[in-house]
Amino acid sequence: MTTPKPSPTIRRLDVASPVPADIDIANAVSPLPIADIAAELGLRPEHFDLYGKYKAKVLLSVLDELKGQQDGYYVVVGGITPTPLGEGKSTTTVGLCQALGAFLDKKVVTCLRQPSQGPTFGIKGGAAGGGYSQVIPMDEFNLHLTGDIHAITAANNLLAAAIDTRIFHEASQSDKALFNRLCPPNKEGKRRFADVMLRRLIKLGISKTDPNELTPDEVRRFARLDIDPESITWRRVMDVNDRFLRKITIGQGPDEKGMVRETGFDIAVASEIMAVLALTTSLADMRERLGRMVIGNSKAGEPITADDLGVGGALTVLMKDAIHPTLMQTLEGTPVLVHAGPFANIAHGNSSIVADKIALKLVGKGGYVVTEAGFGSDIGTEKFMDIKCRYSGLMPQCAIIVATIRALKMHGGGPDVVAGKPLDHAYVSENVALVEAGCVNLAKHIANTKSYGVNVVVAINKFASDTEAEMDVVRNASLAAGAFDAVVCTHHAHGGKGAVDLGLAVQRACESQADPLKFLYPLESGIKEKIESIAKFYGASGVEYSEQAEKQIEMYTKQGFSNLPICMAKTQYSFSHVPSMKGAPSGFVLPIRDVRASIGAGFIYPLVGTMSTMPGLPTRPCFYEIDVDTATGKVMGLS
Amino acid sequence: MTTPKPSPTIRRLDVASPVPADIDIANAVSPLPIADIAAELGLRPEHFDLYGKYKAKVLLSVLDELKGQQDGYYVVVGGITPTPLGEGKSTTTVGLCQALGAFLDKKVVTCLRQPSQGPTFGIKGGAAGGGYSQVIPMDEFNLHLTGDIHAITAANNLLAAAIDTRIFHEASQSDKALFNRLCPPNKEGKRRFADVMLRRLIKLGISKTDPNELTPDEVRRFARLDIDPESITWRRVMDVNDRFLRKITIGQGPDEKGMVRETGFDIAVASEIMAVLALTTSLADMRERLGRMVIGNSKAGEPITADDLGVGGALTVLMKDAIHPTLMQTLEGTPVLVHAGPFANIAHGNSSIVADKIALKLVGKGGYVVTEAGFGSDIGTEKFMDIKCRYSGLMPQCAIIVATIRALKMHGGGPDVVAGKPLDHAYVSENVALVEAGCVNLAKHIANTKSYGVNVVVAINKFASDTEAEMDVVRNASLAAGAFDAVVCTHHAHGGKGAVDLGLAVQRACESQADPLKFLYPLESGIKEKIESIAKFYGASGVEYSEQAEKQIEMYTKQGFSNLPICMAKTQYSFSHVPSMKGAPSGFVLPIRDVRASIGAGFIYPLVGTMSTMPGLPTRPCFYEIDVDTATGKVMGLS
Repeated sequence: MTTPKPSPTIRRLDVASPVPADIDIANAVSPLPIADIAAELGLRPEHFDLYGKYKAKVLLSVLDELKGQQDGYYVVVGGITPTPLGEGKSTTTVGLCQALGAFLDKKVVTCLRQPSQGPTFGIKGGAAGGGYSQVIPMDEFNLHLTGDIHAITAANNLLAAAIDTRIFHEASQSDKALFNRLCPPNKEGKRRFADVMLRRLIKLGISKTDPNELTPDEVRRFARLDIDPESITWRRVMDVNDRFLRKITIGQGPDEKGMVRETGFDIAVASEIMAVLALTTSLADMRERLGRMVIGNSKAGEPITADDLGVGGALTVLMKDAIHPTLMQTLEGTPVLVHAGPFANIAHGNSSIVADKIALKLVGKGGYVVTEAGFGSDIGTEKFMDIKCRYSGLMPQCAIIVATIRALKMHGGGPDVVAGKPLDHAYVSENVALVEAGCVNLAKHIANTKSYGVNVVVAINKFASDTEAEMDVVRNASLAAGAFDAVVCTHHAHGGKGAVDLGLAVQRACESQADPLKFLYPLESGIKEKIESIAKFYGASGVEYSEQAEKQIEMYTKQGFSNLPICMAKTQYSFSHVPSMKGAPSGFVLPIRDVRASIGAGFIYPLVGTMSTMPGLPTRPCFYEIDVDTATGKVMGLS
Repeated sequence: MTTPKPSPTIRRLDVASPVPADIDIANAVSPLPIADIAAELGLRPEHFDLYGKYKAKVLLSVLDELKGQQDGYYVVVGGITPTPLGEGKSTTTVGLCQALGAFLDKKVVTCLRQPSQGPTFGIKGGAAGGGYSQVIPMDEFNLHLTGDIHAITAANNLLAAAIDTRIFHEASQSDKALFNRLCPPNKEGKRRFADVMLRRLIKLGISKTDPNELTPDEVRRFARLDIDPESITWRRVMDVNDRFLRKITIGQGPDEKGMVRETGFDIAVASEIMAVLALTTSLADMRERLGRMVIGNSKAGEPITADDLGVGGALTVLMKDAIHPTLMQTLEGTPVLVHAGPFANIAHGNSSIVADKIALKLVGKGGYVVTEAGFGSDIGTEKFMDIKCRYSGLMPQCAIIVATIRALKMHGGGPDVVAGKPLDHAYVSENVALVEAGCVNLAKHIANTKSYGVNVVVAINKFASDTEAEMDVVRNASLAAGAFDAVVCTHHAHGGKGAVDLGLAVQRACESQADPLKFLYPLESGIKEKIESIAKFYGASGVEYSEQAEKQIEMYTKQGFSNLPICMAKTQYSFSHVPSMKGAPSGFVLPIRDVRASIGAGFIYPLVGTMSTMPGLPTRPCFYEIDVDTATGKVMGLS
């Protein structure tokens, strides 16, 4: 058998040592026209829309056309419990794909989340990978991309405006006046229901379609949503780190007649609409999910939806382009689909189902799709399996766990790792004992991930100061814990070439995978049973519910939402709810402070502790360094 | 001489009678690939970026390449004082261009404002023209377009977050701690100023460039902006009709330590950044304007800018794609540049200078660029001439005033015209006397526009019920008032064919234009003198300043901003400040309630009465009808 020729879009990197700054590496490479990357994937011009020269939206309709095609292998990348510095999960995802595509001659697509723009200007900087494993153009990846998050912001806030304005108009109008405004007579004096109103009529059990036939009681039930302001869970969003909007009072203008209310803004990626985008499977499915999003309750305790407010269709119109994933490229010219980026604690933190599905068809049999899950296996992979795969019907053949010597030392009892402060000596010189002690964390992530019936490959993301002895410990511990393989990789320093061994291990793991996917819990279990399954998975000995959590569980059960999967909102810094409990803690009691729901996205999310959903800016935000070279138009200072 | 062949992108319309709904007309026509329209304009692929198949951003760099090219004729479209229903200014602009391009074989480009997305879902609906004179695809025009307004929202709100967070961090830190955070030592212990900090140092008269050399007093002056929260004029924005955000209290979260403040949101197009986009002439110019936007004062009364906050470069990065105008097409296949859409009362309400400049080069000598100004000549054309042309250095050869029999009857004493209510009988049957009486309004618009030294053509936008006798009155009154010509047009019903006579009149007007542009006032006059020139132009006998206005004028003069042009924030429904004073009122005293400034955009804006900068939603917003056909992906119900 002859080796297939490498794709003509593959680009070889000249790597420098020490590794230059990310932006310098990215700016030194001229990206290929994205139309060439698309053509190499077999896409014809009618399959995609260009957004400038280096981005294209791949149209969802491609799925219909490729229906008969077999899927490629599906690989998910998770990690161990991270330090605040991150352990290189995105970088490993990109590096592995560069290895598969540019060195192992495989058809490959990387599926990544779209980063939030807010943090780019705050503390965190960008999220396009790093070193010689990056998505380019890096500035376009980190900024507006193709406008999906802006569309989410617009849709989220249209719904918010609809809620408050509806309460306002209901307060000053009789049932009849309200109904007359909602279904006004046309020039011939005839009334009709808008299509979206028929959805509310069905929900109310009213089978009439002629507005004139409604009884006064039906008029009242139809026209008066009677939203309980205290029950509203829908907040406004903005893709900016604006801490002063976390808690605000609205409606203080003189025309709003004293109808003030306390509420707040979240960062845009925390919007339920982002979670909908990530979990939807088609335009029709998205229309239904957006329409059934619950914003709060009526005073009688009935859930009120976007469609009750008449706005589900308009939200879909705002989101109709956002449903198509964006095609970009890695430094070595392999294709990347960027799509959706839901919050990894209050939501499920995975890129979109539609991007993965399109990618699996595009690479076809024997090809590889590598997708990233948020945070450690407790949060990222668990939600990937029990929420994302449950909705998509897909199953991964291989799960990668990214580990670093640094994070393992922390789990083994090393000193605190704090962003912005120099690392302790323990982290930059050999300390085999700390690594050995820390492997309990890795072992638990391996065991948990394996419990889904999938082959686990550990990727040891090597830093310059890591030693052979330290890495040997990790390799042995991984195999002892049941990993299919454990491989050292140096893609940050060497690009795809540094992840060839990882690529080979992934290939073997995929080819030998046979078991079906085993979910952690069946959907039919009660909300509490499901929470308890997940808590046990974390290592907890039990669960403790606050009064508020009990009340909410009872309410969602009564409202018929108990058969949804569970999305735990928990810190990523420990298997437990306490960030300082490193390693693999056990015997703790997991406290459930509150329980909320994203009915449109399709999950219940218990809150374990307090999650900030709106970051702030430091005294000296990243934006101080960011500017345009007005002569060349190039962006400077992005990190 | 032979007639030139019509362009291959021209499309002939089959018009139906009565005129179908706008969306049905728009959906019945298949737009051409925008790349074909671009090619017909002489643009090569490197001159534009596609955004899907029917939109493209024309890159500003085209201007450098066409530097040697002669400009085409420049035509501005204004109107008489309108009714609340609008008199068809956009529709006439589009119809005229369809006539010039599709029937008179001229090279032509239409320059339109990008509409705000918020009102599309509220009361107003879309803004792509109407009937057989529309820009298509109409849904893309009215919704996200190419993301410029989203970029403005992001930039505006990043600056807002930077303001409040800076005040927060200054409150808790000593001068030295603040300075250490702003200029932290690197690994080698060295400090450096970010480039944007050098701008602040220059402003402060500190010529040092090494942070270590600053004296404690210089450290304090540099690091402590000492913003007076009461003086902050920068508000947050959102492109949604959300009345409950008009007045809000922010900072109520526990982590914000009681630093609450009253502020509010405007609709995104009211952002000063939109006005900057509309008035800028290059990327370098935009960088400077964004950096010098004033957000409020220090407690000592010094203006604080975006660059003082370190964020001018980041704002430019967010706006770097927005600076390129978007190419679309009319129903008859003529090219349209859509770009910027600043509020027409608190800002200058005109589309962008860069779009007009690119268009003038693209059509070249003998071609036509038709651009629209906001509202009547008192607001739209006045600001077009005294602000936009002053900054662009361009001069129109012809100004069109759109008039309707309906609006003239209102000015002649007809009953109130109210949106959403049936029109009075007077408006739908012949009433020559009312029209005659109303022509005073038209005559004053003609005289005012002529005073700039430009030829005026009146376009009578004919409605089905208008009679020959009524239109004769308008024609005669127009010529008597000094119009170059006055022409009846029926482009709403017939497309370009209905505006051929208007096109011919415009051609004659342009060819005979000789005078230079005469501004209404010189920039060097004081703020009050300039306000008084404009008031006189309106017909006022004098101006009355509130105490607050006096104080602000004094402050801006002291701060060195008195040489900026004036942008009056006044109702569009009367030459005066009282919407009910129709016709051509005189002898009134114009009250100036307050005076504000958009220093980055480059104008002072006196407030004549109260302007709402955030619309609301009615009980039954447009969104009730808006949905996607999930089978075809087509948008339904947009109006």
